[in-house]
Amino acid sequence: MKNLDINLEFTEKILVGFIKEEVKKSGFNKVVLGLSGGIDSSLVAYLAAKALGKENVLGVMMPYKTSSKGSLDHAELVAIGSGIRTEVVEITDMLDAYFKKFPDMTDLRKGNKMARERMTILYDFSAKENALVLGTSNKTELLLGYGTQHGDMASAINPIGDLYKTQVWDLSRYMGVPKEVIEKKPSADLWEGQSDEQDLGFTYAEADKLLYLLIDERYTIEELKNIGYSESFVKEIYRKIKMSQYKRKLPLIAKVSKRTIDKDFRYPRDWEI
Amino acid sequence: MKNLDINLEFTEKILVGFIKEEVKKSGFNKVVLGLSGGIDSSLVAYLAAKALGKENVLGVMMPYKTSSKGSLDHAELVAIGSGIRTEVVEITDMLDAYFKKFPDMTDLRKGNKMARERMTILYDFSAKENALVLGTSNKTELLLGYGTQHGDMASAINPIGDLYKTQVWDLSRYMGVPKEVIEKKPSADLWEGQSDEQDLGFTYAEADKLLYLLIDERYTIEELKNIGYSESFVKEIYRKIKMSQYKRKLPLIAKVSKRTIDKDFRYPRDWEI
Repeated sequence: MKNLDINLEFTEKILVGFIKEEVKKSGFNKVVLGLSGGIDSSLVAYLAAKALGKENVLGVMMPYKTSSKGSLDHAELVAIGSGIRTEVVEITDMLDAYFKKFPDMTDLRKGNKMARERMTILYDFSAKENALVLGTSNKTELLLGYGTQHGDMASAINPIGDLYKTQVWDLSRYMGVPKEVIEKKPSADLWEGQSDEQDLGFTYAEADKLLYLLIDERYTIEELKNIGYSESFVKEIYRKIKMSQYKRKLPLIAKVSKRTIDKDFRYPRDWEI
Repeated sequence: MKNLDINLEFTEKILVGFIKEEVKKSGFNKVVLGLSGGIDSSLVAYLAAKALGKENVLGVMMPYKTSSKGSLDHAELVAIGSGIRTEVVEITDMLDAYFKKFPDMTDLRKGNKMARERMTILYDFSAKENALVLGTSNKTELLLGYGTQHGDMASAINPIGDLYKTQVWDLSRYMGVPKEVIEKKPSADLWEGQSDEQDLGFTYAEADKLLYLLIDERYTIEELKNIGYSESFVKEIYRKIKMSQYKRKLPLIAKVSKRTIDKDFRYPRDWEI
């Protein structure tokens, strides 16, 4: 069965167990996540509520003045549906204080600054609330590098980082995420009218099928061509994966000693105390 | 020769070569770093100037209103001594816009927010200037977790992450970093009068000797006791290392597929394109 279908009941069980166990092992009872109104953070909110109890999950909504009103409404629907606690922190003042120093910033730079500002707030809430930061990046985004390093890609633990976007949709339907959130056009909402699939130049459905064969099933470019993929699409996707590898890595440290961090000094994050 | 002495000529050569090679392999010619006026970023500025030419190194000074005037003066001395380009970006407006939302923030939370704000600016300058972000955390800080995750601990490549603080001092002297910077009391300068060694409760000289034996030479607690270390000091240091392991790790992704990022999907950051 070489396709994106997953056993939804089993996957939910694994991910709920993962959150429960990893949060506890890290010495926490609570989690915090950015609630954007999009499908990824919505699914994580539902999973976390199931794992830890809704009172132990805080969703922080962090709109900028250009963020769509619809995003906030959808985040509210998710908060009501999942029962988690929420807080709203407007990021406009912090960002505008920076943007006015550099009036010629591109949308891309602005979008990255926003994503990183949100990270700083989630990590501050982590300290304030004694809550672990949950990641909400899916496997498609992570592989394509469609995210901001030290921004939305930053977290302590990420329950959905091994699910492709289409699998996130499937599991969200299964877990009862509001249909408004499931059915809307995916958007990072960093500027008005932004569409992920327009940015990327292909649909998530197309990308996920290819990524699954390329990554999970280790198909070669030759094999993909033989089953009908265009070489240019395969190479475009492959290039995106390679070009964004740095976003999925720790800083590279120059080795000059016998034991170097992340080279010969390596332990799991929850190394026994 | 079981001690912290290093061959300074050789170490300089390795680190200069590391910067030159890794920057080029990443497709860049330039680097950007936060220039605090402290010893670590000063040494990195000197190393980078030697590796890439002073015109290809940008030091960004990012004072907050409570930052000491001395820090900025020292950063200026380093800029003049190394010849690198500099820019000043005040972070007060961005931070005060946030701090006023949470008037009861602790100094620790404020300090972390500042460190992360600086990271967001360095990464923005990375995009603006097409320059790679150089890390400036030393091995002592990294092991003790005396730094901010996704703040000063964030970078693309870190030339000094395998040098203990006392080795940073030695190499800085050797390379001609201004003596005002070498001789001053180490401080993160996050609040007035802050002293690293007071925060930590021991000196860098003490910590480095023990860390070297514990990490690089793999001494056991028993062996350290036998050569005269107090058990409580050893355990305190060991505990700091373990408790901060999460800061040295990527987000943990729940595994549900055949190939999971950072588990079975692992490539170097400069994976050949």
